Amino acid sequence: MLLSRYFLPILKENPKEAEIVSHRLMLRAGMLRQEAAGIYAWLPLGVRVLKKIEAIVREEQDRSGAIECLMPTIQSADLWRESGRYDDYGKEMLRIRDRHERDMLYGPTNEEMITEIFRSYVRSYRDLPLNLYHIQWKFRDEVRPRFGVMRGREFLMKDAYSFDVDAEGARAAYNRMFVAYLRTFDRLGLKAIPMRADTGPIGGDLSHEFIILAETGESAVFCDRSLLELPIPAADTDFRSDLSPIVSAWTEPYAATDEMHDEAAFSALPEERRMSARGIEIGHIFYFGTKYSDPMRARVTGPDGQERPVHMGSYGIGVSRLVAAIIEASHDDAGIIWPDSVAPFDVGLVNLKPGDAVTDEVVDGLASRLEGAGLEVLQDDLDQRAGAKFATMDLIGLPWQVIVGPKGAAKGEVEIKRRATGERQALGLDAALARLVQGRAR
Amino acid sequence: MLLSRYFLPILKENPKEAEIVSHRLMLRAGMLRQEAAGIYAWLPLGVRVLKKIEAIVREEQDRSGAIECLMPTIQSADLWRESGRYDDYGKEMLRIRDRHERDMLYGPTNEEMITEIFRSYVRSYRDLPLNLYHIQWKFRDEVRPRFGVMRGREFLMKDAYSFDVDAEGARAAYNRMFVAYLRTFDRLGLKAIPMRADTGPIGGDLSHEFIILAETGESAVFCDRSLLELPIPAADTDFRSDLSPIVSAWTEPYAATDEMHDEAAFSALPEERRMSARGIEIGHIFYFGTKYSDPMRARVTGPDGQERPVHMGSYGIGVSRLVAAIIEASHDDAGIIWPDSVAPFDVGLVNLKPGDAVTDEVVDGLASRLEGAGLEVLQDDLDQRAGAKFATMDLIGLPWQVIVGPKGAAKGEVEIKRRATGERQALGLDAALARLVQGRAR
Repeated sequence: MLLSRYFLPILKENPKEAEIVSHRLMLRAGMLRQEAAGIYAWLPLGVRVLKKIEAIVREEQDRSGAIECLMPTIQSADLWRESGRYDDYGKEMLRIRDRHERDMLYGPTNEEMITEIFRSYVRSYRDLPLNLYHIQWKFRDEVRPRFGVMRGREFLMKDAYSFDVDAEGARAAYNRMFVAYLRTFDRLGLKAIPMRADTGPIGGDLSHEFIILAETGESAVFCDRSLLELPIPAADTDFRSDLSPIVSAWTEPYAATDEMHDEAAFSALPEERRMSARGIEIGHIFYFGTKYSDPMRARVTGPDGQERPVHMGSYGIGVSRLVAAIIEASHDDAGIIWPDSVAPFDVGLVNLKPGDAVTDEVVDGLASRLEGAGLEVLQDDLDQRAGAKFATMDLIGLPWQVIVGPKGAAKGEVEIKRRATGERQALGLDAALARLVQGRAR
Repeated sequence: MLLSRYFLPILKENPKEAEIVSHRLMLRAGMLRQEAAGIYAWLPLGVRVLKKIEAIVREEQDRSGAIECLMPTIQSADLWRESGRYDDYGKEMLRIRDRHERDMLYGPTNEEMITEIFRSYVRSYRDLPLNLYHIQWKFRDEVRPRFGVMRGREFLMKDAYSFDVDAEGARAAYNRMFVAYLRTFDRLGLKAIPMRADTGPIGGDLSHEFIILAETGESAVFCDRSLLELPIPAADTDFRSDLSPIVSAWTEPYAATDEMHDEAAFSALPEERRMSARGIEIGHIFYFGTKYSDPMRARVTGPDGQERPVHMGSYGIGVSRLVAAIIEASHDDAGIIWPDSVAPFDVGLVNLKPGDAVTDEVVDGLASRLEGAGLEVLQDDLDQRAGAKFATMDLIGLPWQVIVGPKGAAKGEVEIKRRATGERQALGLDAALARLVQGRAR
């Protein structure tokens, strides 16, 4: 992609409304524009990151055996009257009346709708276990939206819903999502720690939040430092096997948000293992048994021929919030540092002298070879001074920069820079290409 | 994917509410469930098709030089007051008041918002041409939604918006989208005919609808039969070149919807070239000049240093509607016949005797070899009679069926069936595999 044909509206000034670094950097890097309080348009650089995160979330949901569906954003109020949540939900629910004066709402979550879908088709334990997920926009009419997409009103969420014949099956479903979440966040370059959580308005018996540590985190968290060193379950993990040993390994060490914090238990840890920090919630999983299936009569026949309400869980990942969370966890004074897996482009290819025939030729040749090798390249062909070009590249945080000037080009040499470390290296064209292709493969 | 672990709620009965064949087949094939009038949940089989169509639309937009962004579903009413459309739009616009009593709406289209984004960042002709598109859910509160996703209230649309310094540039942008649309619909297996159209509520000077012919079409159309034989622009079409010869070739032959029909011009055609039929609109492109940039003050400086309102066009494809349109164009009495490019799975692999060791081994081996070759396989491992299995496969319309019974399995032989033609062939395992991999490559 040529920068001259792209749409990357970089801001030179720090936007005053941005209180946290991710919001500031997303605005400055031309990723985002606010359209109303807590409602954002994703500009091209932002969409690319959002779609990559979405793809990784989807892959790991699929791997775990969950099946994708797609529920609408607008729901009928009647569904929520059945569960009793229509009145409970309060002003955070965006209520709508359509042209025929029917009460509708913009879904803040989908427990009711998925339960309605389930009960319409499934009758027998033989069709279980079942886990249906979707990745869809939600709306919560926060009284004071802020921090950009970290706490927006319209946001993209992956929500999955599991259905099992009994509590034991539901626990296995919970474990599958637990492991899928560990893998998902690891692939996004995040150290996420599962913490026992309050079940809140979704209700239920068992719940974990997945939390990343970041100075700007919304809540205080306390955990055993050994959690930072635990291995992530491998890609070939058998999701039909018993995953409870993995879940136990991740849940036995102490970890809690401030609401659930037990100071006595925490103090019992050796001092060097006690870690207290700020955290950002990026995922939340719940087992809530028959809370929805009871009132909504979602029932299946068991092996004994008896009908019973199905056991359910729900499992959320804040997809749009993750864009901000990743930036909170990975940036420096110069800008964003994208993990390779979600970077909007793999390589920023900087032409220091557009119009110079030799430089242009080297840059164009390198771009097509990199793209031929499957890398995504943003080629800076603008007529700007070098300092501005470098500042833009550092700000938008692509994993690799390749800098081509007329002197180097004449010798067939370019400079490559790894954004995360700042390490620079002058290399011949073939060596540079090999390094970047290899860098991408990691 | 094993059918026993999938969620495919086939309906045996014809749903009474479905008036057209695509709606009936989408419900029967377990693709869709109505959640409220004109509001649908996409079940797993439906999502797979929707995502494939979306991916093809995206690829062709990208190829043409359009750049993806993503605007929110909820918009501020103030934007629409600026353009004057807030009052004009009438009851089709879903109007919402948020908790702070601000007037909002669920976007039925995005001309206003994209114009607001454009004017916030772009000042000079040097940043043009620019074409920004997104693929996002829209809402139109139809008074009588019907025909399933063909005329739903919540629907997925690709809408692109072009910005140019003058009418000539805008015409070139229009031509690029015109060619992208020809390619997109061809890849979806559709014969789409561009027809000069009324500009309607979007306004403007120049507009074409892209229409496919189908008996259940919503409007009468009239065209020159020679349009069915025109070649589709190739994948390596240079979108920076002058595309007007292609557009001329497609717009010179007579083609019009009934609103624009000129009986005299049509009658002047030789009789064997006159074709009158029913059509379904699947895309619509508009050039509307400064209709929005004037009132909303989206202005750029030209090469002469003078400021002027930017020339705009907008370009829509009904992504969710396409799922139904493809079925209208491609089905038979037994069910759907998916074009290869959008089929939810490439192959339906039918095990006629699950539990029989030899049959299971052949089926499992074939499934993993097909998946290894990059094909998507739905493996019917249910304990059902053969007739029911065949009926389900025909209904869901996968391009290829592979049928494995115990007798054939013992000889290392399977039967493959091409859904579109009904042609069946008994083949050895290697030959079957080669045939399917080759079939997919087409």
